[in-house]
Amino acid sequence: MINLGIVGYGNLGRGVKAAIEKNADMKLCAVLSRRPQITQKELADIPVLDSGSLPLPRDIKIDVMILCGGSKEDTPVQGPLFAESFSTVDSFDTHADIPEYFQKMDTIARQMGNVSVISAGWDPGIFSLERVLGNAFLPQGHGYTFWGKGVSQGHSDAARMIKGVIDARQYTIPVENTLDEIRKGNTPELSNRQMHKRLVYVVAESPSEHDRIMREIVEMPDYYADYDTEVIFITAEEMKKNHASLPHGGFVLTSAKTGENHKQIMEYRLQLDSNPEFTGSVLAACARAAYRMKQSGHVGAFTMLDIPPAFYSPLTAAELRHKYV
Amino acid sequence: MINLGIVGYGNLGRGVKAAIEKNADMKLCAVLSRRPQITQKELADIPVLDSGSLPLPRDIKIDVMILCGGSKEDTPVQGPLFAESFSTVDSFDTHADIPEYFQKMDTIARQMGNVSVISAGWDPGIFSLERVLGNAFLPQGHGYTFWGKGVSQGHSDAARMIKGVIDARQYTIPVENTLDEIRKGNTPELSNRQMHKRLVYVVAESPSEHDRIMREIVEMPDYYADYDTEVIFITAEEMKKNHASLPHGGFVLTSAKTGENHKQIMEYRLQLDSNPEFTGSVLAACARAAYRMKQSGHVGAFTMLDIPPAFYSPLTAAELRHKYV
Repeated sequence: MINLGIVGYGNLGRGVKAAIEKNADMKLCAVLSRRPQITQKELADIPVLDSGSLPLPRDIKIDVMILCGGSKEDTPVQGPLFAESFSTVDSFDTHADIPEYFQKMDTIARQMGNVSVISAGWDPGIFSLERVLGNAFLPQGHGYTFWGKGVSQGHSDAARMIKGVIDARQYTIPVENTLDEIRKGNTPELSNRQMHKRLVYVVAESPSEHDRIMREIVEMPDYYADYDTEVIFITAEEMKKNHASLPHGGFVLTSAKTGENHKQIMEYRLQLDSNPEFTGSVLAACARAAYRMKQSGHVGAFTMLDIPPAFYSPLTAAELRHKYV
Repeated sequence: MINLGIVGYGNLGRGVKAAIEKNADMKLCAVLSRRPQITQKELADIPVLDSGSLPLPRDIKIDVMILCGGSKEDTPVQGPLFAESFSTVDSFDTHADIPEYFQKMDTIARQMGNVSVISAGWDPGIFSLERVLGNAFLPQGHGYTFWGKGVSQGHSDAARMIKGVIDARQYTIPVENTLDEIRKGNTPELSNRQMHKRLVYVVAESPSEHDRIMREIVEMPDYYADYDTEVIFITAEEMKKNHASLPHGGFVLTSAKTGENHKQIMEYRLQLDSNPEFTGSVLAACARAAYRMKQSGHVGAFTMLDIPPAFYSPLTAAELRHKYV
């Protein structure tokens, strides 16, 4: 049995908890929360502690701590802190800062004899893996990553900042024609506009402001100006009813030619009704991998590129060879 | 520079050679062939030796030997033989015999301090990997593997055995409606007929026999009777012109529900104009992984489930974290 803890009990923490319950070899032994009293009400059977309560009480034994806070504020602090006492898994996704964060986590985890799996999930994570496989197997090829259809929090926030906007929800959508171009074996150089379009649902204070709001969204630099953007005004009720879930997904494609103009196309696709529940499922499997890595003598920080895939599975190597190879 | 050898110079061996030429860190140092004189004519610059010439001449240094013979006759003999002297990569694909073959290769490779990557390619290989990831990340899900559109040698041979058939080429084709069912988040139990259909191009001795030949194919137990099969009669010229290449591919899908009925769908797809050239590309990357595994202190047999994905890539772990995570 692998004893797990969760740090941070928002959407992702809930996703991890649900995933742990689907894995017979895992047990959730503690949840650390900023609002432990509220969280304890939701989690009757599981010890809930304040996020700051390190060291943990002696009777709580944790093999791997899964960090479910935000990449901006929480993980850069909590990662190094918890890596001193536990093996950890996180989904740190500020791409530009990953090399530095890796170094910091690697140093601490090595010192303490722990394993830290960083930047896990689907992107970074599974998509990183598929990009590397694409490039390694078809080095002469072109690689592409598309995201969506899914909610981008950053773009939703940007639209919400506009005067007169009560609420906004932005969906990033891959351009289907471009996907089909690549699936046909073409390897185009693509602009932002050719890859993704943006669809924004807006609740506005007044219909008289719709035109101005639409213009301000569509023309907003960085966020919208480089894309074809559609703005749809809806009521607060429609927003609540139709846009509460957090779907996401995307595509990793590698297209190459080998030999006499033979097209070879690798395509990986995720279609997720719930981004946090899927990411939580991946993090739970990564916690198993962290546990196994440590058991087999590894220490330090690792990304999903460094983990033998068999380590994610509850089955033994022999069972996998028999059933899955 | 990784020094490679190829054993067996058919379609797959040619695919491996083409792949080695696309990788700047690899060098093809020898080809072992059953018909060395004919092969030497094709490969002016590369030493070609008889398959049986072990030990190799002293001036030929090989880090990894890539075994490109057939799984039925060649690899079960050549694998253990070459693993005594070299790290090896093979694409042994007799699924039922993989556990026993693994044990044999593991014992020899450990004794000799070598690394043997067995059953590499796309299925077994990449598809094995995607099946394991699907099951590990969504343990409550259903996994599906579809093959095609692609040529099945076994089914082509079976049709060719029928009296009056001069030549036959069978394409396995996934049933598109079934794929769409799964992509919608359904998790049906599927019969053979629901998963694949079969399309057979036949060159017959006489048009008067078309009806009988068609009936014998469509009703053939094991090979055709459990599938919807279409038989199309063509001329020998059409066969040569339109059916000489070896396309293949397929799909690995995992469909699961998490939380409140949220559909989560993972889909991996390969679309290959040339099966041997793609498989050759994967084997070349696996040779790099075998070399790296040995360098980092591993010995024994491994499948692609046991290999950290970063080992397939020519880039360093730091470069991968910077560019691909």
